[in-house]
Amino acid sequence: MPRVFNFSPGPATLPEPVLRQAADEMLDWQGSGMSVMEMSHRGPEFMSIFARAQALARELLGIPQGYTLLFMQGGAIGENAIVPMNLIGRTGRADYVVTGGWSQKSLEEAARYGAVRTAASSEAAGFVSVPPQDAWQLDPGAAYVHICSNETIGGVQFHWTPETGDVPLVADMSSDIMSRPVDVSRYGLIYAGAQKNLGPAGVTLVIVRDDLLGHALPICPSAFNYAVQAEAGSMYNTPPTYAIYIAGLVFEHIQRQGGLAAMAAHNRAKAAVLYDYLDESRFFQNRVAREARSLMNVPFHLRDPALDAQFLAGAQARGLVQLKGHRVAGGMRASLYNAMPIEGVQALVAYMKDFEARNR
Amino acid sequence: MPRVFNFSPGPATLPEPVLRQAADEMLDWQGSGMSVMEMSHRGPEFMSIFARAQALARELLGIPQGYTLLFMQGGAIGENAIVPMNLIGRTGRADYVVTGGWSQKSLEEAARYGAVRTAASSEAAGFVSVPPQDAWQLDPGAAYVHICSNETIGGVQFHWTPETGDVPLVADMSSDIMSRPVDVSRYGLIYAGAQKNLGPAGVTLVIVRDDLLGHALPICPSAFNYAVQAEAGSMYNTPPTYAIYIAGLVFEHIQRQGGLAAMAAHNRAKAAVLYDYLDESRFFQNRVAREARSLMNVPFHLRDPALDAQFLAGAQARGLVQLKGHRVAGGMRASLYNAMPIEGVQALVAYMKDFEARNR
Repeated sequence: MPRVFNFSPGPATLPEPVLRQAADEMLDWQGSGMSVMEMSHRGPEFMSIFARAQALARELLGIPQGYTLLFMQGGAIGENAIVPMNLIGRTGRADYVVTGGWSQKSLEEAARYGAVRTAASSEAAGFVSVPPQDAWQLDPGAAYVHICSNETIGGVQFHWTPETGDVPLVADMSSDIMSRPVDVSRYGLIYAGAQKNLGPAGVTLVIVRDDLLGHALPICPSAFNYAVQAEAGSMYNTPPTYAIYIAGLVFEHIQRQGGLAAMAAHNRAKAAVLYDYLDESRFFQNRVAREARSLMNVPFHLRDPALDAQFLAGAQARGLVQLKGHRVAGGMRASLYNAMPIEGVQALVAYMKDFEARNR
Repeated sequence: MPRVFNFSPGPATLPEPVLRQAADEMLDWQGSGMSVMEMSHRGPEFMSIFARAQALARELLGIPQGYTLLFMQGGAIGENAIVPMNLIGRTGRADYVVTGGWSQKSLEEAARYGAVRTAASSEAAGFVSVPPQDAWQLDPGAAYVHICSNETIGGVQFHWTPETGDVPLVADMSSDIMSRPVDVSRYGLIYAGAQKNLGPAGVTLVIVRDDLLGHALPICPSAFNYAVQAEAGSMYNTPPTYAIYIAGLVFEHIQRQGGLAAMAAHNRAKAAVLYDYLDESRFFQNRVAREARSLMNVPFHLRDPALDAQFLAGAQARGLVQLKGHRVAGGMRASLYNAMPIEGVQALVAYMKDFEARNR
């Protein structure tokens, strides 16, 4: 089959040149006679791959001095516990801003490790907006304030950076990291599972301000202790080497495309194609407040849910796959991460117009 | 460069047919139009890959009813904490048998979560043997007894299964899982990072007896709670999908080779080639007690360590790579996991004989 347009919310589509290079190098990475999967993480071959991935990530994200970049095992659900295990010990309390299913899950998990509060929530209206900052009730004694910059289920995204004064801002950027420029200096900690914009599932980027290291609870496992991993250069344990290699290839691809400013322009243009059509359609509907619409995940509903299965089957037949919405939200969801080409969104909208015309 | 003979202790050499298939399928898995890395973990394509990997692992290992098989994020160093977080709560105490650097590390990490004891140790003699069971001081009130079935640094392996009565036996089998048949019913829990015999770093197999589920400490992260993962079919969080796919291909390869009995015969034959030569050589030396010699990792020392660098350079030039010993042990180490062909060991011994003849 030719390559499909894959709208999966994650693990998600990857740039084809990255996959081609990975296939080419699978049996013999650059004359080493080994696959990257087969390399000792402490050997010179993998160390060079690792150093390059780290340097590129720092460059693309503009990570300033005074911040450590870690590649950790696992994903964001693990980090929901690992973040408080590392940070909440400073004061024993933390604030969470709840804008959807993911930040809600983060809050619930953190409650194992300290006193957590909902500083703001958009749940009452069904998670279709980001609460404006003047409605946040922040605790000046919190160890941190946690947000999820993009909620993949609801399709709600922060398009502004909260101001939290002396309280470090912590962001789960799993689903929009490297999709646009970010001012890292405004954050105390950023974490992101790789499997949306960066690579395969199983590796998580953590960017942590150095003064926040060293406050882990005694029950924090060594492998998940940021200070231990910072000291060991992310190699206290065997890192997920192949996932880091693929992420490094993705970073190179992003750099060739022009970096994060180019990604942002590309992502705005793609999302506009779909939102513009949704705004004019009376057949399909997106329910998110305009100023909080996600450029990464666009949930939409058919006016008549009885047509959902037919819509999905027709999409599949055209090579437009993994469009089914999250089980909590129902309907459809098109995820438009960096690696989704604009042609994919155009093909989706063409199909939606056609489907609407035939079923109106 | 042609493929080398890769003696890395892990991540380690993989079967070439597995790598070829992975390369072939990288852009389009079986007509899906997607790479396995790009598939939603909840879609039908990946679910079929996952189910097949699980079924094959159960079949190869002969996992009986009443045991759950999990694929977890991370590796064995993470499990050093995750095991006690899940199991020690039953009584608050655990016994550890220390036969080298890895079991020592497991014990130290577990001490964060309860009262841990060294039930036996071979440290006094320099970790070159397994303490006989009649020398173990077992606590009948322990929540479990922990062993490491193969110590990769010292090259010490259990060639018998301890009898621990009503106290569940827990084994870190990271470096010898699927290298030989195992009677799973003798164990309460088995865990193994994949990156030696099974596939890429970043996924861990956990085999747990069902009556041991449900005793996690309140501070156990949900993603690392065996009961939560058992309930969710290892998908409480996004599993490391690509690593699981590769492991599944390795399982198929092992099955085609004749299963674990065939692996054991193959591994015995390979190790004999090297140990037989070491026994006759006065130039190279292995220090491990004969009955505890590892079939997986063979550490050896040159009589004159001043020749180490020259030995390694000559090996590298012959395509015999990653032979340098662990920094704690010094000298050399040849890791002979399942995927190392006997030709690799023969080539190594031929080189060692030649080196000995030239430098004697």
